Formats: sequence, structure tokens, C-alpha cells
Amino acid sequence: MIDLQLLNYLDGFITEARKKRFIEVLAERTKLLTVAIEDVYQMHNTSAVVRSCDIFGIQEAHIIESRYGKRLDKDIAMGSEKWVDIIRYRNTKECIAALRNQGYAIIATTPHNDSCLLDDFKIAGKTALFFGTERNGLSAEVFAAADGFLKIPMAGFTESLNISVSAAIILHTLTSKLKRETDDWQLSAEEKLVKQIDWTKKSIRSIDAILARYEQQK
Amino acid sequence: MIDLQLLNYLDGFITEARKKRFIEVLAERTKLLTVAIEDVYQMHNTSAVVRSCDIFGIQEAHIIESRYGKRLDKDIAMGSEKWVDIIRYRNTKECIAALRNQGYAIIATTPHNDSCLLDDFKIAGKTALFFGTERNGLSAEVFAAADGFLKIPMAGFTESLNISVSAAIILHTLTSKLKRETDDWQLSAEEKLVKQIDWTKKSIRSIDAILARYEQQK
Repeated sequence: MIDLQLLNYLDGFITEARKKRFIEVLAERTKLLTVAIEDVYQMHNTSAVVRSCDIFGIQEAHIIESRYGKRLDKDIAMGSEKWVDIIRYRNTKECIAALRNQGYAIIATTPHNDSCLLDDFKIAGKTALFFGTERNGLSAEVFAAADGFLKIPMAGFTESLNISVSAAIILHTLTSKLKRETDDWQLSAEEKLVKQIDWTKKSIRSIDAILARYEQQK
Repeated sequence: MIDLQLLNYLDGFITEARKKRFIEVLAERTKLLTVAIEDVYQMHNTSAVVRSCDIFGIQEAHIIESRYGKRLDKDIAMGSEKWVDIIRYRNTKECIAALRNQGYAIIATTPHNDSCLLDDFKIAGKTALFFGTERNGLSAEVFAAADGFLKIPMAGFTESLNISVSAAIILHTLTSKLKRETDDWQLSAEEKLVKQIDWTKKSIRSIDAILARYEQQK
């Protein structure tokens, strides 16, 4: 249940402009598209993908860290991680199972499969876009499980794009298409309120003391 | 005048596959769109923009280096610089004058002007896309001279994209639109042959000795 009274209470501790910004940003958020990042060992790349999620309105990012464990935690905890929900997995299998369970199609982004070019990609329901490492690409596991592939057409001698650049191009193109061509891409009213409470809490410095006071007053 | 006899001669020193690749890549090259990069002091960013030019078929990149002088030269000389023509300027004024002289419209890419969003941008003839530094954006000089502005719509809390990411998104979107919507974006037959000779030369290790032999035989 959403505690609207709590939200009203907390709103007193942030500026009107801040509150307005939250509502604006939430109006552009989607869970219809999500990303899954497989074992990217260069932390600044994961961080850059999460940043693109924030910029293009992807609310959830799935991070698989089988090889590098908890090392990423601290390093990617930059600004945008606050506004994008990060879901972590110890291996690819877990991540795919969780996404399938939520009804996502598994799409492998790769320069090595020509079956679908970015501009022709149709968003048919919930779609999870998988991104692999720069060096090795996605694992065989993702390829085997994939419901589809997605390639950015490249017309030069350079044969691969950095993962942060690929992700940005794909997220820009697909969120723009999503908003142009479909209707039900937004978060539900309830999901929006849950995130608004979460973001409001994150924006208040002495939130613990304030929450304690709220509980007493109730 | 194009020396077709020379091209035939040099073709003997590269593989058929290589030659085919040159022709394929040249078929996707354009000068209708070009980029100008203003004083980007992080060399890997300039290098990444040049790489995107190669990938999306932009044949010429203009680099303004007033503040950092020759420092960039060596560092950006990575793979893709071989295949994209780099034109260097000591200042923004020179660069704008040269581009105007060739009939290019000056378009300032910036998050700070809402007059035209990327998906609405119309490519009306030769277009030079200007990119500024991460920290300061484009100079006042470019803003004052600009025929138009271009913004990537951003829907999150993060307010700016890295220049290499912005450039990749814009080049992907606009080259794709260019090839879909216009006819005369390709290099001329003559321009293609000039580049083919250039690229063939660059692909032959002992090119100087081979050219000397060719001159003797002629």
C-alpha cells in the first residue's frame, strides 16, 4: 500500500521545483524496455549505461556480475544510480530466468547477427536488451536463450562500438520509437508514486530522523 | 585527374577482399553531413568521434585545436583516422569560414537550446554538426554563427551526455535519416576513386618503393 500521507509529509522537506522535476521525470519513465549488462569489467562502462538509462527513461537496469563479484558496487554508485533501479545477479542464468518470469523477451545486442537492424526493430511487448563485454561480447548462454537479436548497422572499417556508445544509440532510438508508436509504455500510477516516495526520501539529508519523527506523530 | 592506371597497378598489391571492402565502404560514405569538433581536450573523445564518423560513413571531420595545439596529433592517430579525412584548424573562425565557403550550414549541437530536437531535424543540404567540450560546451562564436541548433532530448536527471556518446547518437540518427530520405548523399564517382587510391596506398606497406617502380615503368 502506498502511504500518500507520508509522501505529503516528506514533500515538506524538498522544494516545489524538486517535486515538479520528480513528476516530470516519472512521466517519461518506462519498464517496457529494460537493459541487462553482462559482466562488463570496465566499471565506467556500466556506469555510462546506467546514465543512459536515466537520460532515456529506462527505470530498471539488470547487472550480471559473475566474474567480478562485488567489485563494481562502489565504483558504479555514481549520480544516476540513485534514479535508476539496479537489480544484481550472480550469473546470467538467474538474470534470464528472472526477466522471463516477468514476461520480458530476451534480445541480444550484437554486431555479429544481421537478422534485425536497429531501425527495423519492432518493440513487441516487454523487452530486455542484453549488452556484453567489449572484448568477448555476450556469452553463449545469452545467444542460446535469445528471442531475438539487434544490430546497429555499421558502414565503416571499425567493426565495433564501445558498449556505452552502443547502449546510448539503442536506448535513444528505441525509447523514441516506443513513445511515438505505443501507448502503454509508462509506469502505472502506483509505480510512479512508489518511486516518487523513494526519490523524495533519497533527496532528504536527515531522512532517518525525519521518518522517526513521522512515525511518532502518526 | 584520376590515374586509373595507377589504381589498377596498386590493386595488384592488395587482396580482392580488401578491394571489395573499400568499394563497399565508399558506397556508404557521405560529405553531405560533416562534423566539427571544438577544442575537445580529452583526446580519447575526439578519437571516439572520429571512430563514429567512420562507422556511420562521415568522410570528413573538422578539428579545431586553438587551445591545445598540436598535442592531439599523435594521440588521436588511431585506426579510424586513416579512413576519415581530418581537416585541422587553429581557431573556430577559420573553421566556420571554410565550411561556409563550401556551402555547409553551421549547426550547433547543444543541450541548452530547445529549438530543434534530434528526431525533428531536417537535413536541408550540406550540414556541419558542431560539438563542443564536455565542460564548457561550444564557444559563443559558434552559437553566434549558427544557422541552427540540435538537441538530443533527455528525460532524466542527468543533464548532459559525453561528447562521444552525443556524437554517436546524432550521427547514427542523421545518417540513417539521410539514407532513407534523400538521394544525393553519396560521394561522386570521382571522389570515390580518389579515396580508393588513397586507401589502397595506405594499405600497402612498402608503398614508396612500389610507387617509384610504377613511375619508372610508366
